[in-house]
Formats: sequence, C-alpha cells, structure tokens
Amino acid sequence: MKKIAILGSTGSIGTQTLEVVRNNDDLCVTALSAGNNIQKLEEQIREFKPKYAVVFQEEKAKELEIAVADLEVKVLSGMDGLLTIATMKEADILVTAIVGMIGIRPTIAAIESGKDIALANKETLVTAGHIIMKLAKEHGVKILPVDSEHSAIFQCLNGENQREIDKLLLTASGGPFRGKKREQLETVTLVDALKHPNWVMGRKITIDSSTLVNKGLEVIEAKWLFDISFDQIEVVVQPQSVIHSMVQFVDGGIMAQLGTPDMRLPIQYALYYPERRPLPGERLDFMKLKSLTFESPDTDTFRGLFLAYEAGKAGGSMPTVFNAANERAVAKFLEEKIKYLDIIEIIDTCMKKHCIVENPSVDEILEAEQWTYEFIESRW
Amino acid sequence: MKKIAILGSTGSIGTQTLEVVRNNDDLCVTALSAGNNIQKLEEQIREFKPKYAVVFQEEKAKELEIAVADLEVKVLSGMDGLLTIATMKEADILVTAIVGMIGIRPTIAAIESGKDIALANKETLVTAGHIIMKLAKEHGVKILPVDSEHSAIFQCLNGENQREIDKLLLTASGGPFRGKKREQLETVTLVDALKHPNWVMGRKITIDSSTLVNKGLEVIEAKWLFDISFDQIEVVVQPQSVIHSMVQFVDGGIMAQLGTPDMRLPIQYALYYPERRPLPGERLDFMKLKSLTFESPDTDTFRGLFLAYEAGKAGGSMPTVFNAANERAVAKFLEEKIKYLDIIEIIDTCMKKHCIVENPSVDEILEAEQWTYEFIESRW
Repeated sequence: MKKIAILGSTGSIGTQTLEVVRNNDDLCVTALSAGNNIQKLEEQIREFKPKYAVVFQEEKAKELEIAVADLEVKVLSGMDGLLTIATMKEADILVTAIVGMIGIRPTIAAIESGKDIALANKETLVTAGHIIMKLAKEHGVKILPVDSEHSAIFQCLNGENQREIDKLLLTASGGPFRGKKREQLETVTLVDALKHPNWVMGRKITIDSSTLVNKGLEVIEAKWLFDISFDQIEVVVQPQSVIHSMVQFVDGGIMAQLGTPDMRLPIQYALYYPERRPLPGERLDFMKLKSLTFESPDTDTFRGLFLAYEAGKAGGSMPTVFNAANERAVAKFLEEKIKYLDIIEIIDTCMKKHCIVENPSVDEILEAEQWTYEFIESRW
Repeated sequence: MKKIAILGSTGSIGTQTLEVVRNNDDLCVTALSAGNNIQKLEEQIREFKPKYAVVFQEEKAKELEIAVADLEVKVLSGMDGLLTIATMKEADILVTAIVGMIGIRPTIAAIESGKDIALANKETLVTAGHIIMKLAKEHGVKILPVDSEHSAIFQCLNGENQREIDKLLLTASGGPFRGKKREQLETVTLVDALKHPNWVMGRKITIDSSTLVNKGLEVIEAKWLFDISFDQIEVVVQPQSVIHSMVQFVDGGIMAQLGTPDMRLPIQYALYYPERRPLPGERLDFMKLKSLTFESPDTDTFRGLFLAYEAGKAGGSMPTVFNAANERAVAKFLEEKIKYLDIIEIIDTCMKKHCIVENPSVDEILEAEQWTYEFIESRW
C-alpha cells in the first residue's frame, strides 16, 4: 500500500490524483489540503478518509472541522498544517499540486524527511530549483515530475545516461492565439484566453498557456529537473499536443513520449515510478490523428517565453520575479483589471527594475516575491 | 577496446558498420567476411587489418589469399570459415550483416560461445527465432537489433518492463508504391521498384520494402525479439520515415524513437549499448520537417504484409517458406524473369502448398527452404 499526501487536492491536478487513487487499490490517501474550497475538500475527506486535512485559511478550517466532526480526520490550518502533512511519517510520497510559492517550504520539509515528491507545483523549481535539487540529492529523494512535458522527458530519459543528452525538445501547443500577431492580441478578452485548444486545466495555467509564460516556466523547471543549460532546451510548437516532449541524444537519436492529453498518465507514472500500471482511457489513434505538425514558437509575439529564458539565464532571484509578476498580472487580468498584453508588459518592467540576489535563500526568494507584488501594486 | 567480427562486411550494413568503427578509436575489427566481392573485401582488410577474412566461395577465397599475401590476415572459406570467425575468442561481438539463411548457423555458434549479437540478418529470427532467443537466454547473450525499426523499439524499451507493453507500433514508409492500387502495380518495372523514397539500401531489401514483405519480415522478427504476440504488433505507415517505431504501454503512454534515416545510429547503438556515443551527421530539424503523417497499411494491395502475419501466426516452418519464397521470387524479379505482382503470387502459392513442420530444428528449417526453392523451380 502506497500512502499519499496531497497538497492542493481540490485543484485540477489534485482531483485527478484522487481519480488515480480511486482506480488503484494499492494507493491510499493519508492527507489532503485545500486553500479554501472546503465543500469539495469535505467530499474528498468522506470518500478517501485521510488522517489529516489542511485548510490554509484558518476560519475556513474551523468551518470544515465542524462539518466533518462525525469523522476521525484531524483538521489543521496554515503553513503549520501544510508542514505537518508534508512531513508526517504515515506518508510515502507528497504530491505538490498546490499553486504558488506557498509550495516551497512544505516541499523542502518533505524532502528533509525523506519523502519522494510528485511535483506539480511549478513555482518550487522555478524559484528554488538550486535549493530543491541539491537537497533532494543529499537526502536520496526522487523528484518525480507530474507536468506532462517534464514527465515525457523523464520517461524519455528512462534507462538513459543524462550526460548523453544533446538537447531537450519541450513541446508546446502554441495556445489559442498561435499564429496571431501582436496587434491581434491587443483586443483579446478573458473569454478568448480561457479557451485552451487541447487541455482542460485551471484558469491561471490556461492563461499562462496562451501567453507561453507557462512554457517559459517549464523551460526553467526543466533546467533544474534535468540539470541542463538553457542553450540545451528548445521549445517546439506541436499544435496537436500529442508529442508531450522529446530528448535528443549525442548520437542524434530522439526519444519522444506521446499520448492523448490525459494528466492522469503523468500523475500515475509519478506515483508508481518506475512501474507502469494499466490506465483505462482513450488511446492515441494514429489513423484518426493523420498528421502531426511542427513550428517554431513566435517569441516576438509571445514575449513571455523569451522573458522566461532571460530570467532563467539571469538566475538568482530573477525567475522568482518573472513568476511572481506573472502570477499577479494574470490575477489582475482574470479580474479584468488589465488588458491581455499588459501581462507581459508587467513582467518585463518588473524584471528590468529588479536587482538580482544571487543564490537566494528561501527567505530571499519570498522577499523577491514580496518586492514584485509591492512594485506591481505601486504601478498598476 | 571492443573487438568486432562482421559477417557480410561488403554489403550496405557491413560497410556502414566499418564506418562506425572508423570513427571510434575504441572499436577494432578482428574478422571480416564477404560472399564473393573480394575487391571490396581486400580494401577493407588493408584498412582494418583483421586477423581473419572469410570468402564464402572457395575459389574466390583463393584469389583473395594471393592478393593479400603481403598481409598477416588468414583467409578462410565456406561455412567452416564463417563458423570460425563467429566463435573466435578474439571477438566480443558478432555483427550478422550477411543476407540469407546462411546466417543462422554462425549466429547459433556465436551465441553458444557467449558472444553478443548485433543482428542485421533478418532470416535468423524469422526462420529460427524459437531457437535463437531461447539459446541467447540460456547463454546470457544479448541480441542487439540493428534494423532501424527494431533498434527504435529496443530504445523505447530501455528502462521499461517488457510485461508492461500494450503493443508495438512498427512504422513503415509505405515504399515507392504507397497509395497505388493492385491494377497499377501490374505494370511496375524493376527500375520503379528500386526507388526507395527515404532509405538507401541494398537491392533485395529495396524491393522487399516496395512489396511490404520487408515490413512483414520485421513483424515476425519483432515477435521473437520482444517476445510478443502478433496481435500486439501493429504496422503504422509513416511516409517520412522519421519515427523509426514506437511502443505503447499499458498506461496508454507511447514511447517513440525518431531521427534522420541513418543506419549508422542503430549500428553504433548496438555496438555500444547501453551507451550512446556522439555520432556526427545531420540532425532531425522539426522546423524543416513541418509535418509527420500517418496511414494504415493497405494490406489488400500489399498482400505481402498480410501473408507475413499469416505465416507468423501459422508458425513452425511457415515463416521459412514465406522468406525463402520471397527471396527466390525477388531474385527472379531482379533478373527480370517474372513480373512484380508474381512475387506475392509465388509466396502465396508456396505457403498454400507447404506442410508445416512444428518447432523445426535448423536442419528442418534448411529443408523447408530447400523445398521452397525446388517447388518454385518446378513451377516458375
């Protein structure tokens, strides 16, 4: 029986993780956590019977406690609650499906207590990759990517020698605005931006896909996960989202991972790695598919990707600023307070104004985040 | 230093194997062999300085012996010569690039003397897969596929568990006559059939590609190499020959190997497995490629593939008959003695007339081959 703790169980990855648990008798859940969606969390608690449940907001935690008073579950709140479930001895693996930099401390704590990490929290590696990967190595802990692209690369590297990588080919759908030029993006509405062509995902990540900022974050994550230079990470637009990513080796051979867009596959792969378990669902049908196409990303129009490389190469606290600026800007766009193209404008300005802190500690990362938030509030 | 003996060094795979040896200082050649092209063999001997050289035809061997009298090389002939170099203690690995069933006995002898096999001889597994794979297991010997498709599958299985395979997706270019109907094949000439769209190969294999008999032989080989049922082997036409083959696993995930059509890659991969060495040469450029397309094979028109599955499923000596009938029929077509569509007609008739020998010994395999040859001579 593999025991799983989930940070962020009510989000898209969280609920799909629970779907994988539901389909496998040898998986069980020891802890769940949510930001504030206590209704969904209660349903999950009643079905999966975890030992702990964490609600980040204290008041909401109290509400939940009353709602589940008939059950044995212990309800916790805040960062203390997250740290408790990240380090609890009853869990073998921590799924970090939480969104935002809030995931960093629990991830570090989990690594320090020897737990493998099924990593779906982008911010952890983007902002603290230099800390996380070193720590994981020291503690002999596996960082198992859950993102479809990183999982694809991870699968391509199965049985291979990391030193024989020539480059990573990170695929991108290109998002709903692929082929459009800058002028055409000026009038983009929230509704337009929330339509992803291939994947059903959360709202923020859907916007991030449309700006290619998401792909940029993935580039920075890939750098840390696979210990590779930015020059060795190439983004290839593959609009059908069938090739989830590829690795080219020194002999010119390319390994690729393909499939239908189903997040349960990388989730299940991470939970059972190195084993592959049967997964019911639609299979890729090449005869229906008929063709796969490839393009270069248009980084002039989609400057988010360009800026991500810049932030990544600059290093230190810059990727944190890139990420925090995007996070806040997207929130403002989702609230319809700024225009679509302002998202990138805000990121760009924040990066220009930021003084890099080299090799930042977690506190310095969180300070850089705070600086970014304050800078944005003062300007927009 | 890795020491290599090559059966069939003057053919297409043989010469490309020597190109790989030429580019790698830690490879050396201890034995070479050819059917009768002693001029080319002499050049190879002068460059690679093997200890032994074998010419199958005794008279030609004598000619070569005189030509290389100034060198230390020992010239041998016939099956005895092949068996000597297959089992010589000075070699670590045997490359079986020889064409035809003549490869079976030396391959068996090499396995019995504990040598890994870089297998490019199709007939070995097609006709004697049941003997070879069992023997290799008993002797703890690796059978390393050199064919681009099987190498691709082998690479896709790197680090994976064979029991978690759902199916193999063997790709096919479709050959020069893809899209044509049976009526259009009636007038095909030798020149037409020798034009392969993507790969530069020997004459026989080029014809075999055009009839899809080659793909059929590969299906039977794959069955043995990867210990899988015929129902789990699907042929996918991928006309650009960029995806060299794929494996679908039980979780729906598909691993694929891609690259430019360059046989040196699978050869080098087999020689250095599990290591990948740098290989100079053109790289796949997805931006130039633009698209990959997929089709079902038209087995009504290209009945060779259908017959291969039939022969494979019938088992016993039937794949030998399929292969021998094709070999003789293609020879007749290359001599312009029969028409293009007669190739498949001959195979079909031989299969219908053959009484299967179950679990045939090597002698029985060679008898089935002989029966096929004689049957064809009596009829066509």
